[in-house]
Amino acid sequence: MIILGFDPGLATLGYGVIRKEQRRGAEVLDYGVICTPKDENLAVRLCMLEQGIKQVIAKFRPDEIAVEELFFAKNVKTGIAVAHARGVLLLTANKECGMLYEYTPLQIKQALTGYGRADKNQIQQMVKTFLGLKAVPKPDDAADALAVALCHAQTNKLGGLFSL
Amino acid sequence: MIILGFDPGLATLGYGVIRKEQRRGAEVLDYGVICTPKDENLAVRLCMLEQGIKQVIAKFRPDEIAVEELFFAKNVKTGIAVAHARGVLLLTANKECGMLYEYTPLQIKQALTGYGRADKNQIQQMVKTFLGLKAVPKPDDAADALAVALCHAQTNKLGGLFSL
Repeated sequence: MIILGFDPGLATLGYGVIRKEQRRGAEVLDYGVICTPKDENLAVRLCMLEQGIKQVIAKFRPDEIAVEELFFAKNVKTGIAVAHARGVLLLTANKECGMLYEYTPLQIKQALTGYGRADKNQIQQMVKTFLGLKAVPKPDDAADALAVALCHAQTNKLGGLFSL
Repeated sequence: MIILGFDPGLATLGYGVIRKEQRRGAEVLDYGVICTPKDENLAVRLCMLEQGIKQVIAKFRPDEIAVEELFFAKNVKTGIAVAHARGVLLLTANKECGMLYEYTPLQIKQALTGYGRADKNQIQQMVKTFLGLKAVPKPDDAADALAVALCHAQTNKLGGLFSL
């Protein structure tokens, strides 16, 4: 099963693609970011995101897509910008794939570390470990997208915990 | 020139269509709302909004589209929901029409009443007056959408103020 994870964002939207079969460890297929220029107007940036999301889905043809839910404790303005992007992301993912799942930051942390207050570094180290990578994937948004894909692989009906 | 105004929302998205020619008063062509059920999941609701927006644009073939900017003083959660819907709205409007303009609540109030602190009732009365209607359009989201369309008609290069 191919799982595509997304970390929503307007300037930088992360994606991570993994393969996970029953009783086997997860394997990374690709990861990266879709970027939009800050000096472009919002509607054009949203169109650019849609194009990038479509391309990633068309390339990897995921069976299921996992998206991080919005969490915004600090900056409402940033939260609103991300929510515009996330609306386009959910729309496009639902149209292009249909199998769409959402996870809160808490669920992602618990799935990857067993600990709901894990910090960014701990999550990234677990992404590296679960995927057998030599280094933490960069940039952060791509690592976050792999984390949500791994969270989905672990939490859905794929058959229990990761085998390391 | 046909102008389509949108008042963004997730549960209720208002639209208003007017015709405005040089040196003539604005004329209402249609107004209404696109609704999505609260018990449906977010991605499906966004797809329903996209369909509704596309249908309105296809039916009236507007020359220009005006969208209200987000203003959220009170409820961040509602603001985030509206921003998801607004992302889909800007994406779809930009793809289907291209001529897209955004106005703040302040700009809309000033354009319609000359007063930046006008209340909802004052705005609705001016919508009724400018469009020569017998009553204030209902529901409120449709009246708000007509207000942003009228704001655009007045503020862009259409040639000055409304003639009543």
